[in-house]
Amino acid sequence: MSSSDIFIGETIGTAILILLGGGVCAAVTLKASKARNAGWLAITFGWGFAVLTAVYTSAPLSGAHLNPAVTLALAIKDGDWSHVPVYWGGQLLGAMIGATLVWVAYYGQFHAHLTDREIVGGPGAQDTKAVEAQEAQAGPVLGVFSTGPEIRNAVLNLATEIIGTIVLVLAVLTQGLNDKGNGLGTLGALITAFVVVGIGLSLGGPTGYAINPARDLGPRIVHALLPLPNKGGSDWGYAWVPVVGPLVGAAIAAGIYNVAFA
Amino acid sequence: MSSSDIFIGETIGTAILILLGGGVCAAVTLKASKARNAGWLAITFGWGFAVLTAVYTSAPLSGAHLNPAVTLALAIKDGDWSHVPVYWGGQLLGAMIGATLVWVAYYGQFHAHLTDREIVGGPGAQDTKAVEAQEAQAGPVLGVFSTGPEIRNAVLNLATEIIGTIVLVLAVLTQGLNDKGNGLGTLGALITAFVVVGIGLSLGGPTGYAINPARDLGPRIVHALLPLPNKGGSDWGYAWVPVVGPLVGAAIAAGIYNVAFA
Amino acid sequence: MSSSDIFIGETIGTAILILLGGGVCAAVTLKASKARNAGWLAITFGWGFAVLTAVYTSAPLSGAHLNPAVTLALAIKDGDWSHVPVYWGGQLLGAMIGATLVWVAYYGQFHAHLTDREIVGGPGAQDTKAVEAQEAQAGPVLGVFSTGPEIRNAVLNLATEIIGTIVLVLAVLTQGLNDKGNGLGTLGALITAFVVVGIGLSLGGPTGYAINPARDLGPRIVHALLPLPNKGGSDWGYAWVPVVGPLVGAAIAAGIYNVAFA
Amino acid sequence: MSSSDIFIGETIGTAILILLGGGVCAAVTLKASKARNAGWLAITFGWGFAVLTAVYTSAPLSGAHLNPAVTLALAIKDGDWSHVPVYWGGQLLGAMIGATLVWVAYYGQFHAHLTDREIVGGPGAQDTKAVEAQEAQAGPVLGVFSTGPEIRNAVLNLATEIIGTIVLVLAVLTQGLNDKGNGLGTLGALITAFVVVGIGLSLGGPTGYAINPARDLGPRIVHALLPLPNKGGSDWGYAWVPVVGPLVGAAIAAGIYNVAFA
Repeated sequence: MSSSDIFIGETIGTAILILLGGGVCAAVTLKASKARNAGWLAITFGWGFAVLTAVYTSAPLSGAHLNPAVTLALAIKDGDWSHVPVYWGGQLLGAMIGATLVWVAYYGQFHAHLTDREIVGGPGAQDTKAVEAQEAQAGPVLGVFSTGPEIRNAVLNLATEIIGTIVLVLAVLTQGLNDKGNGLGTLGALITAFVVVGIGLSLGGPTGYAINPARDLGPRIVHALLPLPNKGGSDWGYAWVPVVGPLVGAAIAAGIYNVAFA
Repeated sequence: MSSSDIFIGETIGTAILILLGGGVCAAVTLKASKARNAGWLAITFGWGFAVLTAVYTSAPLSGAHLNPAVTLALAIKDGDWSHVPVYWGGQLLGAMIGATLVWVAYYGQFHAHLTDREIVGGPGAQDTKAVEAQEAQAGPVLGVFSTGPEIRNAVLNLATEIIGTIVLVLAVLTQGLNDKGNGLGTLGALITAFVVVGIGLSLGGPTGYAINPARDLGPRIVHALLPLPNKGGSDWGYAWVPVVGPLVGAAIAAGIYNVAFA
Repeated sequence: MSSSDIFIGETIGTAILILLGGGVCAAVTLKASKARNAGWLAITFGWGFAVLTAVYTSAPLSGAHLNPAVTLALAIKDGDWSHVPVYWGGQLLGAMIGATLVWVAYYGQFHAHLTDREIVGGPGAQDTKAVEAQEAQAGPVLGVFSTGPEIRNAVLNLATEIIGTIVLVLAVLTQGLNDKGNGLGTLGALITAFVVVGIGLSLGGPTGYAINPARDLGPRIVHALLPLPNKGGSDWGYAWVPVVGPLVGAAIAAGIYNVAFA
Repeated sequence: MSSSDIFIGETIGTAILILLGGGVCAAVTLKASKARNAGWLAITFGWGFAVLTAVYTSAPLSGAHLNPAVTLALAIKDGDWSHVPVYWGGQLLGAMIGATLVWVAYYGQFHAHLTDREIVGGPGAQDTKAVEAQEAQAGPVLGVFSTGPEIRNAVLNLATEIIGTIVLVLAVLTQGLNDKGNGLGTLGALITAFVVVGIGLSLGGPTGYAINPARDLGPRIVHALLPLPNKGGSDWGYAWVPVVGPLVGAAIAAGIYNVAFA
């Protein structure tokens, strides 16, 4: 694969990943969306099929890493770091493009949500102060772009992201062992998608399962730049956790792989 | 493939697509249905398995485009426009047959729904005027047949349909690259189905993801023709958006494919 | 395949089909079940994975028809009726065994449900008379065993069952065309399973999608025989619809196949 | 396969199985989890994708039994008992590691759940005494670790676990017949995953479908050892049922296989 194919493939693939992944968060969260309140199962399957679509589309060009943590793990496994910058660059650019496309596709919904917010107490009025305090830190639509913790504790949040990424990366690395010689690469895209649904369902509860630095950082930058009214903060104090955690998890998984599977 | 196989395949396939796709909308919407209020996840998976069933059944005859936007993109990619009219004709006819079969399968439910409607206020009484205003424009069961926007704005609605169709068509076009030589055509039907579930979950919120001109126009014509009591309007003012948007999106996707993947 | 392999395979396969299919109805319906009120999506996916498990397990022995309508369609398509009685016998016996195993697995739940029923009005008290009238006709747990219509009208109910079975059988018959020569029989089991989920989501609303005479008749016989307290009637007046409808649908689908695909 | 590969593979695989399987129970149950109250469908799909991820990752090393009942059935089928102790040892150790990782990933959620519990009556106050009585027997978070019955009756609970395990093991044993010679081992992981979702949806209602002695016993030991505040009892009186039931079911399934399929 040429560097330009890698860069284009990762940019297109990660853009699709974030367009669909951020899209399902917008669909379930924002006012005037047919999918509003569709629930956690919709979010996790939406992210899984985002992975499927993105991997399937970009695999012929770049092999579909779409995640700096996956790129890091493969570099450790293969001992080849030459393409890491190209992969990482395409992934971050793609994630920013994808987040911008979510804003375009849900432009009217963002406006309706941010300019017509319920202030007074309704059925959940007793939670208003807690919600307001959280939203002062993380803007009211930041969850469409980036992840955030339910309980803010850097050590615990890092641990959860590390564990989730280990599971993801081990499944990706063993794909080569499972598919060796039988041409089931396409099936691998489907299995990776369901693995991501599983990680979301099982390990997404505490931090929202970034398990991918580009998936979190790229959209957070876009959130900071977009001219959204009343958008609130981008929660930069948390931004390092979903970058460092997945990279550490990927390194651990590559180590496990090299010891146990290679 | 002969022209008659193409026409028959597309007619049967698109009829199955709309029978099952419109069917799940009827199942979730209409009174006296066991699936009433089964939610957005049921609708998106229902449409996805509609795609699976329709593609799987019609692929041996026509290659299973089942969507004028897909036919357009393949014509641009291959530079071969000779079969476009046959595909489009079969697709529109099939969509109309499918919508008619939904009406047959849910005949009793349509009658119960349209002749015994709640007029006075219930838990959602404060929304009655908004609902009535919308239903004067788009009939109370039009959603079983065709799509409609949550926020009516032609530019925004077009943008959402264009973005959704680009994702669909890129996945369809890259199928050839993924499956080359390993005979996984059948697996491609499954992956396309889950891609459509993903587009629905992630990009369906604003407009209901037509992403297929025949899927929207054919059933809308049938809605206008059927002798349904109190059916209300067919919302022809919106009808051009889910036709033009998907065709524009398909052309853009074919362009991206020819530049980046070919 | 020998007649004894066919009979054993169909008996085991249909027993698994009804054990899991009836099981999910019990799980979602009965008191003291962890899955109570899990909803329509749980029921439709439960039946789909029942098909997957049953087809996958019995395919090596009998080819996994598991449905008299499928056996009929294949006999019409191939012009070979010699094995039809063996298939049908195994299917009916298997369905009765499966329904009995549901009763064993949910014995405590059946007892809790039928001996401790809410009589007085709760949130749905205004519906009590309608529910009682329906239960006098169809017993309060008959839905765990057999299907029943939301709107009782033989012509409409037959039409819905015929349409659903046509979709199922066309997908089964075209499997031979899709899989020819590439050994994807196992994938066919998965696709058939999702086709059945799709039929359930899209066409299950009016009658509960029997689309299989053995699936409905076998458990209905078991319901009539089991010593369940307060079980109510077995609704024999409706029993012919889910037998005749699927057989008619299968014959129509075989005709379509022989004209359009063969 | 060497004994060390088997032991490492089963340990890693069963750790992933219980990390994701226990994880989804934590996600849906505990306070301060984004997935709280996501429902039974989330739990069953979460366990299914736990199976997928675990089987896919460990299959190249150990063949991915991940369940003492599966190991027993394969030993009976093949008449080879030499590796049974290595498999069982790896499975139990892996299950304990997995349960410990759930505790790490959800550390903050466990603390929030167990130290800030609602005591006074709310909407479900009439059930408080029943809940307290149950929690005195089985601790308030034991369900994140191990299974428990809705209706406590050893004979009935054993029957349900036996029936569920027969279905699982028959599907696993026939995999060899389905996949013979076409290299679809990877697809087998996906099918087994959906079979487990199906067993959960259909037969999980009465006892929570252990169908795997290591899945229940390993986490129960960890529950007894962990320093969780207010954790309550580990319900050792029930612990033998999800060990004995699955082993009996596996033996019955192996017998059925040897008579009907071999």
